[in-house]
Amino acid sequence: MDKNSYIGVFDSGIGGLTVVKGIVDSLPDENIVYFGDTARVPYGTRSKRQIIEYALSDVKFLATFDIKAVVIACNTADSTAREEVMAAYPEFPVFGVVDPASRMAAKTTRNGRIGVMATKATAASGAYDRAIARYNPEAEVFDMPCSLLVPLVENGRFLPGDKVAEMVVQEYAQPLVDKEVDTLILGCTHFPLLTDILRKYYPELNIISSSGAAAQELRESLEKAGTLNDSGKPGTHRYFVSDDAAQAEEIARYFMGSVLDSRVEQVRIE
Amino acid sequence: MDKNSYIGVFDSGIGGLTVVKGIVDSLPDENIVYFGDTARVPYGTRSKRQIIEYALSDVKFLATFDIKAVVIACNTADSTAREEVMAAYPEFPVFGVVDPASRMAAKTTRNGRIGVMATKATAASGAYDRAIARYNPEAEVFDMPCSLLVPLVENGRFLPGDKVAEMVVQEYAQPLVDKEVDTLILGCTHFPLLTDILRKYYPELNIISSSGAAAQELRESLEKAGTLNDSGKPGTHRYFVSDDAAQAEEIARYFMGSVLDSRVEQVRIE
Repeated sequence: MDKNSYIGVFDSGIGGLTVVKGIVDSLPDENIVYFGDTARVPYGTRSKRQIIEYALSDVKFLATFDIKAVVIACNTADSTAREEVMAAYPEFPVFGVVDPASRMAAKTTRNGRIGVMATKATAASGAYDRAIARYNPEAEVFDMPCSLLVPLVENGRFLPGDKVAEMVVQEYAQPLVDKEVDTLILGCTHFPLLTDILRKYYPELNIISSSGAAAQELRESLEKAGTLNDSGKPGTHRYFVSDDAAQAEEIARYFMGSVLDSRVEQVRIE
Repeated sequence: MDKNSYIGVFDSGIGGLTVVKGIVDSLPDENIVYFGDTARVPYGTRSKRQIIEYALSDVKFLATFDIKAVVIACNTADSTAREEVMAAYPEFPVFGVVDPASRMAAKTTRNGRIGVMATKATAASGAYDRAIARYNPEAEVFDMPCSLLVPLVENGRFLPGDKVAEMVVQEYAQPLVDKEVDTLILGCTHFPLLTDILRKYYPELNIISSSGAAAQELRESLEKAGTLNDSGKPGTHRYFVSDDAAQAEEIARYFMGSVLDSRVEQVRIE
């Protein structure tokens, strides 16, 4: 394990690519290996035991590469299985998405009222409430389970002008705005794609994406540990999924656009 | 295997319960075992190889019971893996959902124009086009992939008055109506729950649910084979899923209402 080792990133599906995009934008020299468990997506509706089992098998695959850090780019897996992953893999640091976004929200809210849009499982887990409380015990946190947003995004329905997407986003966001939150955490890696609709209706909100916050925390940690890749050469990026690669690549374009610089490969991990 | 043997029904998730409901309504004496593969749902976005593998393992579980027939209550699995299931289990008849609905539509359309609302995978498979052509080679078939309807239904968003559900249903149905179809196949086991919305906007349409048609064909086949259960006692119904049972039971109530007469049990099938 050295500076040139890979950063491993995994998600239940394709959404975690918003984290990869954040890392590539901020740390273009890093080598990255991504695994999206598209054969078993979504994790958000599964039981705790099942999610832990899946997360451990995902990291087992990533660990077949020379890894210097792992990012759990899936709010469900992070809030359910991060401790189990850390215990199983003490040889490298394990980052999540919940903690970085919570820290940033706790630091930047002015009125101490924070909304969290997340999947049903993440919202029910209370993971953001606990994480935010660690950084700002006074903050009031309002969770909103947003079950329809992942299917909307995965069907390319996320741009302003899409009436269904706009209506559903408002249905979830408006009750949080009515609670007078000044800060909104997008607590699902799919949701950064809905930022333009949110900005259209709620331009005053301080929007924090868990994907962007995770990439920023990773950068700070690698800097501190002296393991940042500063080769000056663009990093190698490898993308794996557990189901059909062509279909994943189509959706991956929504998430990464032209930053998607290599083919998506299918791998069997079971 | 005798009259009292079970009818095995499986689906990728909970939607196949609309088929079970159809069977219970029509054949209350039959013993039924249902398996919903909720740990691996949805099949509609998976590759052909993966769907076949899953379907075979689902039937392997059902075949641990004394089975007299299997119904593939999943349009995706039926249109992708029925032949493989039939080849692997010659000892009992295997029914699907595509063929019965296609036959009924082909027989009842007046103008020969048939619309099919289905998941993306089923629509892309052309399964309904081929099946309808067998019964009515002159019929014109219009497929509409409806990616957002399963998540809507599974979130309880299927009743008239739900603005998002109404908008999305119209978005998918209107182009078919514009093609002047007089008959509409609901080619996904989730979609019968959207019937009230469809009737509200399109009262003239001849709506055929693949679930209802499958139950009717099963009845006719058992009658012909002399294996209909005529014990005069209400049948035993067992429900199994591969992920969390409590959560499945909650959604199962949407599909079966008070017809759901026993607890849902979790089973590991891998």
